[in-house]
Amino acid sequence: MNTQILFRSRPAGEPHESNFRRVQHGIPTPIGGEILCRTIWLSLDPYMRGRMSEGKSYADAVDFGEVMPGATVGQIVESHIEGFAPGELVVGYGGWQSYWIADGHGLRKLDPSSAPISTALGVLGMPGFTAYVAVIDMTGATSGETVVVSAAAGAVGSAAGQIAKIRGCRVVGIAGSDEKCRWATGELGFDACINYKTATDLDAALAKACPDGSEIYIENVGGVVGEAAFRNLKVGARVALVGLIAHYNERKHHHGLDIAPILWKRATMRGMIISDHAKRMPEFLRDAGAWLREGRLKYRETIVDGLDNAPQAFLKLFHGENIGKLLVRVADDPTRP
Amino acid sequence: MNTQILFRSRPAGEPHESNFRRVQHGIPTPIGGEILCRTIWLSLDPYMRGRMSEGKSYADAVDFGEVMPGATVGQIVESHIEGFAPGELVVGYGGWQSYWIADGHGLRKLDPSSAPISTALGVLGMPGFTAYVAVIDMTGATSGETVVVSAAAGAVGSAAGQIAKIRGCRVVGIAGSDEKCRWATGELGFDACINYKTATDLDAALAKACPDGSEIYIENVGGVVGEAAFRNLKVGARVALVGLIAHYNERKHHHGLDIAPILWKRATMRGMIISDHAKRMPEFLRDAGAWLREGRLKYRETIVDGLDNAPQAFLKLFHGENIGKLLVRVADDPTRP
Repeated sequence: MNTQILFRSRPAGEPHESNFRRVQHGIPTPIGGEILCRTIWLSLDPYMRGRMSEGKSYADAVDFGEVMPGATVGQIVESHIEGFAPGELVVGYGGWQSYWIADGHGLRKLDPSSAPISTALGVLGMPGFTAYVAVIDMTGATSGETVVVSAAAGAVGSAAGQIAKIRGCRVVGIAGSDEKCRWATGELGFDACINYKTATDLDAALAKACPDGSEIYIENVGGVVGEAAFRNLKVGARVALVGLIAHYNERKHHHGLDIAPILWKRATMRGMIISDHAKRMPEFLRDAGAWLREGRLKYRETIVDGLDNAPQAFLKLFHGENIGKLLVRVADDPTRP
Repeated sequence: MNTQILFRSRPAGEPHESNFRRVQHGIPTPIGGEILCRTIWLSLDPYMRGRMSEGKSYADAVDFGEVMPGATVGQIVESHIEGFAPGELVVGYGGWQSYWIADGHGLRKLDPSSAPISTALGVLGMPGFTAYVAVIDMTGATSGETVVVSAAAGAVGSAAGQIAKIRGCRVVGIAGSDEKCRWATGELGFDACINYKTATDLDAALAKACPDGSEIYIENVGGVVGEAAFRNLKVGARVALVGLIAHYNERKHHHGLDIAPILWKRATMRGMIISDHAKRMPEFLRDAGAWLREGRLKYRETIVDGLDNAPQAFLKLFHGENIGKLLVRVADDPTRP
């Protein structure tokens, strides 16, 4: 059977399990030009919250009754496309379901001997690619500059900080637990990491970690973290506006950000959506693949077992419960020992 | 006697007349390398509110007991600097007082036959220069693009919209009264102007005036106006962050702006402070002077008589009571009929 998690109702504020509905159907049959894939890994990402909202966002809203969208890693069961064979592993956009039909568009084959296949959803996938474009293309971080990264232990933030380190920057993370901060400084090589939940004065903590302010800020969060990071900017700073997860569950957009420091510091803030940058993907895969093999780019995964647990797992993102990439293991990964 | 308006106490929220103190001293005597100027016109500008606040801003806070700072147009009474002669008219930074001592630095002579000398504080001064840099350098507005301007009837906004028109843009203003909107569309050539105070749905009004959104937004205001303008941006839009007057009187910076559309629209927002751009002043004076003579750049002045009324007049800025440039006539202008 094909288990699917459908979009049932719009959350008013924080999503709830009741916004999703689980259904089961027979496994679909691919026709000419199609492939049937069995889902192994499902990626859970903050952007999905936007697609559950009414009205304009960077992606179209999902319709009620549609399968929740999402990137997936799976194995080909049956193929009617030349060049894709049963048993091969692929990353695509299968959504929250245990089998999906692909037309080959946007499907990329994975070599499990090169990197664990789940990384195609994390450090070698959309989150890692987002970090790469944010640090390199959006802000042009160069050697000697100070880079502040919020959600420093998230899938994007952890990669962004490490890429900035690879480029010779001083990197200061902001994260929501001591464990996250220890990972950032202890394993990922961040120069400092501030636990914003326990800092008595976030501005003072940032000032201490960045005595001259920061040339660059990678914004994933917004809220009080974003405002403190804005105040910490140097004159002429560059901000990559990647995400605003602190605001995604607001019922109306009343809780904005004090952007006066963007003015005072003559900063430049650039909003980005990774899908605009698809042509940079080959360079990213080349660079990030090499960094991963060389041990210069590390990652962690928070794994939740079973598609049925995806709705509950999704909520973890908004409570900061994941460290690194949040994944649902929909089926056993045949490439993992 | 020299009348001075001193900074007396920090406003908690909106400035009040009690934050200022009026004193009288003897007229100061210039020594070698100095000039004594008699103030004719005093400029009142939103940035002055920032200088009354504690803590970081783009300018240093004024100390208690200091003369309130401000740009002034005056006449030289006595000069000990070669090249400046009594009777000559100058624009400088004399502050809120009826006489000031200048050391020649930043002092520029004015030719009353070329333009009314008060324009050196408005359309040919800092506000006009700000508009010029915002439209041309910060956003690079080009022919055929749609430019939205907030505070459209203010000193900066009215110039910004006209400069965008001169560059071949479609210009939509947002202002706070029907009279202001009539001025913008009737005299200044704006294509449309929305009264945000009477619009039942500002988003809908902007969507109607900009059916495809706007490529450019000149932000002077923030608040609900700024948020609506952000939502109205096209993908890839450019925002010049010039001012945030709706927020200057906030006690703490709690009332931020929803910047999610900057992310969704992949917009670029650039904060600017005009003093960074001093080297562009000659081009600005050349271009704006020509546009003024050709009747392509128009302006209005809201004039308050008497230095004693400066504190009360300053409050007008925050209530939107001025149209065009807000000036204090400190002494009769000998060049005006």
